[in-house]
Amino acid sequence: MYPIIIGIAGGSGSGKTTFAQNLKKDFENEIVVLSHDFYYKNHDDLSFEERKKLNFDHPNAFDTDMLVEQLKDLKAGKTIEHPVYSFVRHNREDYTVKIEPKKIILVEGILIFENKELRDMMDIKIFVDTDADIRFIRRLVRDVNERGRTIESIIEQYCSTVKPMHEQFVEYSKKYADIIVPEGGNNKVALAMVKEQIKNILYTI
Amino acid sequence: MYPIIIGIAGGSGSGKTTFAQNLKKDFENEIVVLSHDFYYKNHDDLSFEERKKLNFDHPNAFDTDMLVEQLKDLKAGKTIEHPVYSFVRHNREDYTVKIEPKKIILVEGILIFENKELRDMMDIKIFVDTDADIRFIRRLVRDVNERGRTIESIIEQYCSTVKPMHEQFVEYSKKYADIIVPEGGNNKVALAMVKEQIKNILYTI
Repeated sequence: MYPIIIGIAGGSGSGKTTFAQNLKKDFENEIVVLSHDFYYKNHDDLSFEERKKLNFDHPNAFDTDMLVEQLKDLKAGKTIEHPVYSFVRHNREDYTVKIEPKKIILVEGILIFENKELRDMMDIKIFVDTDADIRFIRRLVRDVNERGRTIESIIEQYCSTVKPMHEQFVEYSKKYADIIVPEGGNNKVALAMVKEQIKNILYTI
Repeated sequence: MYPIIIGIAGGSGSGKTTFAQNLKKDFENEIVVLSHDFYYKNHDDLSFEERKKLNFDHPNAFDTDMLVEQLKDLKAGKTIEHPVYSFVRHNREDYTVKIEPKKIILVEGILIFENKELRDMMDIKIFVDTDADIRFIRRLVRDVNERGRTIESIIEQYCSTVKPMHEQFVEYSKKYADIIVPEGGNNKVALAMVKEQIKNILYTI
């Protein structure tokens, strides 16, 4: 049965990462968090200016096959080396991170329910749902502070790809969720419920 | 602490009653289900033809104050006599049903998150979310088979009150939910999660 795979999806800025981190706190030694963002495709073939213009919110931006393969490896008890992506250089780093298999794997990302093979590997599918304006505000603050972007480039990217891709792919994939958590990462009742379910699985299998 | 109050809301035909009944199965002796529909206002002042034209999907159609008072009584350990509503006669029955206090009270209805006082009494708020076309189909089948309505009267009521009231009040109240359960009453992962949380509350308080 182990590991069980829990998917946490939601739009950019929805609070899915906070939700994942809040879950992780209670199961520190038994949980691995894998972000779909780690698996953005490598683009050594493009210049920085060309890479900046890529559509990072389309399913094709991700090497989802690699994530699926690495999840299969973890399920088979193997150690993996997951890639790392630089949001400043817009390319894959030249180092990887070693991950040992644990009892629970949290997979998080905006589009993890969009791919059927990935989705079907998940035991529990959670969608974190937050109003679009709040999601934009969070993204703005994060991209300015942590990713060194300008306000103009953030707005341009949001309107040209983030919002249309959200409406076309992310919002649509919500229907595959087992539960939807409104208002993001600090929803205490939902967190308590998911934690109880994880405990139940951990201690009764 | 006892009883704990769990609210299950969702549009007409969403599967909230099925979800409530599926929960009830596992906790038969510890659970009471109270339907907001029991508390439709009495209208002895109106003729049958006038009552048929009432807007049953507006918050004002319900005697929510009475439900709140009866929940307070149950929380205080008192027995209640809840009213019963006839969907054929469109009026309150002249008998009541006696309910003893139990550890868990499930309150279900389309508009139970719309009233702040009622909403604030709930420990867990669950919204069952189902596509509008599927909800209409379920309502059509139920109202023809169980409530003796004609297809024409069902469509007329759906378009004139059910749909606009859903959009104005029910959809809006979804934001107050702790978790949203897509695809109704037979969502097994969500059911398992809520059951675990109930067990946790029952056996650790």
